[in-house]
Amino acid sequence: MTVGRQKIIGVIGAGDASEKECKVAEKIGEEIARQGCTLLCGAMGGVMEASCRGAKSQAGTTIGILPGSSRSDCNPYIDYPIVTAMGHGRNIMVARSSDAIIAIGGGFGTLSEIAFALRLKIPVIGINTWDVSSEIKKAETPEEAVFMAIGLIGSNT
Amino acid sequence: MTVGRQKIIGVIGAGDASEKECKVAEKIGEEIARQGCTLLCGAMGGVMEASCRGAKSQAGTTIGILPGSSRSDCNPYIDYPIVTAMGHGRNIMVARSSDAIIAIGGGFGTLSEIAFALRLKIPVIGINTWDVSSEIKKAETPEEAVFMAIGLIGSNT
Amino acid sequence: MTVGRQKIIGVIGAGDASEKECKVAEKIGEEIARQGCTLLCGAMGGVMEASCRGAKSQAGTTIGILPGSSRSDCNPYIDYPIVTAMGHGRNIMVARSSDAIIAIGGGFGTLSEIAFALRLKIPVIGINTWDVSSEIKKAETPEEAVFMAIGLIGSNT
Amino acid sequence: MTVGRQKIIGVIGAGDASEKECKVAEKIGEEIARQGCTLLCGAMGGVMEASCRGAKSQAGTTIGILPGSSRSDCNPYIDYPIVTAMGHGRNIMVARSSDAIIAIGGGFGTLSEIAFALRLKIPVIGINTWDVSSEIKKAETPEEAVFMAIGLIGSNT
Repeated sequence: MTVGRQKIIGVIGAGDASEKECKVAEKIGEEIARQGCTLLCGAMGGVMEASCRGAKSQAGTTIGILPGSSRSDCNPYIDYPIVTAMGHGRNIMVARSSDAIIAIGGGFGTLSEIAFALRLKIPVIGINTWDVSSEIKKAETPEEAVFMAIGLIGSNT
Repeated sequence: MTVGRQKIIGVIGAGDASEKECKVAEKIGEEIARQGCTLLCGAMGGVMEASCRGAKSQAGTTIGILPGSSRSDCNPYIDYPIVTAMGHGRNIMVARSSDAIIAIGGGFGTLSEIAFALRLKIPVIGINTWDVSSEIKKAETPEEAVFMAIGLIGSNT
Repeated sequence: MTVGRQKIIGVIGAGDASEKECKVAEKIGEEIARQGCTLLCGAMGGVMEASCRGAKSQAGTTIGILPGSSRSDCNPYIDYPIVTAMGHGRNIMVARSSDAIIAIGGGFGTLSEIAFALRLKIPVIGINTWDVSSEIKKAETPEEAVFMAIGLIGSNT
Repeated sequence: MTVGRQKIIGVIGAGDASEKECKVAEKIGEEIARQGCTLLCGAMGGVMEASCRGAKSQAGTTIGILPGSSRSDCNPYIDYPIVTAMGHGRNIMVARSSDAIIAIGGGFGTLSEIAFALRLKIPVIGINTWDVSSEIKKAETPEEAVFMAIGLIGSNT
């Protein structure tokens, strides 16, 4: 079970995402695990659940930053539930705790996380997401998104 | 000193705002006070300080949601400093504690506050700010912005 | 409505306090208002509500640090509701935002606030409350508690 | 790297603990790892660092809830740093995210965590710590503390 300090990639997107977005998220989760990185997310459904399911299918590790107050109120693919009881206020912690972030689609909650990440100089890779800054690097495929994330962590550390 | 539950209008914008933005913020603060509303903001400089200065010049009341850990680390026009020690994490509290929000210009921190407000269905009025949603009502002048904010609170309560 | 930076006294205690504790809290609220200080509390019932009622009966000003996510989910004597949506996590903000704290009885929530206040070197006056440190100054009457709080703020600033 | 939902035991105590307390903390960390549980703590020095060092010496897994704003500002034995930037405000998250808590000595910060845990009905095992409630189960040795923690998680779930 020994792990040591690993690269943590945050995956953000809507809890009520489209089927297509969830498919992308799942593949991103798979790729994060295959690359030996840890996946961190907001612990709920939609993009968050799909990416965790992908990571677990490849024997990866998942951390969830829960908005609610109960350890069990998260998707079933979370290894380590961090209980904030802060509602949407946990969004900034998702950004802060990630070495890089991949945003898939998303609504205003995702926008708040992108804004925080950009404010905190955390690399953001986007797939069909909010287009609010040229600092968001656009990826076309799940594999490319993870490849870019890992590269940006390298140059960021 | 008796006040009773009042309308609270949040004013958001950059801490390193332009002179023009600060001038607009100051006039908004003046108008908020003249209309008998309370001004709430993130307690720091730039747009935040200018709006508070405006409110105090008209004998208004100001609440600051401080990012730091010291009661004295805020602009000098704050009547009630609320000390969060949460850094940018205090942004969501600025949104949550306002009956309506007026955004003036702003960077990524302001964008996070706008995103939270829209997520939480708190009315947002914008003056030359982030154009991320048609739900942000555009105002041309400080007076119009405050007038619109008060109107939206009415329809929101 | 002009107020300027004032002394803020936090009042803490249980939401399901005894009638006797609430009576003490109400008198403390009255005295805080009579001395021209602002009362800050956790915004809910019991000791919090009683102290606010006392303060408002003397035309004082009250700030509530709300645990919930709705501006209206607080006792009816709160002038300025600050919405944290952090549950018990708001307790440290009650401590941080007070120049001095008066604790009346209380359970584990109150204990967490006392612990934070002591950790942060904020003066604590206690009436029949947790006896965990000699740094908690004991008061016998509501008037004495407020008198001691104001004195300790003086020496603390 | 596949882990699945595991038992998380929080270890709390002072950042400037005595040598004796650190020795106890280290043995507790070792035992938590040997029992296949995950260790969670406040990520800093003293009891926190010693317990993490113990856990890693037995190939265990460690989660740190960081008070600061930088991913690297934690002790070197943290596998998964969660960045809160909330200072002591992160204490309630340490309590909330643990299935059970072991307290070793400690000052006012530790007291705030014990208070939150008791408030939230999370089992607390204490070794020479604050004696504020009969709900704190006393342990004499590190092994006994971990044994009791695991037992209380069982009955708690």
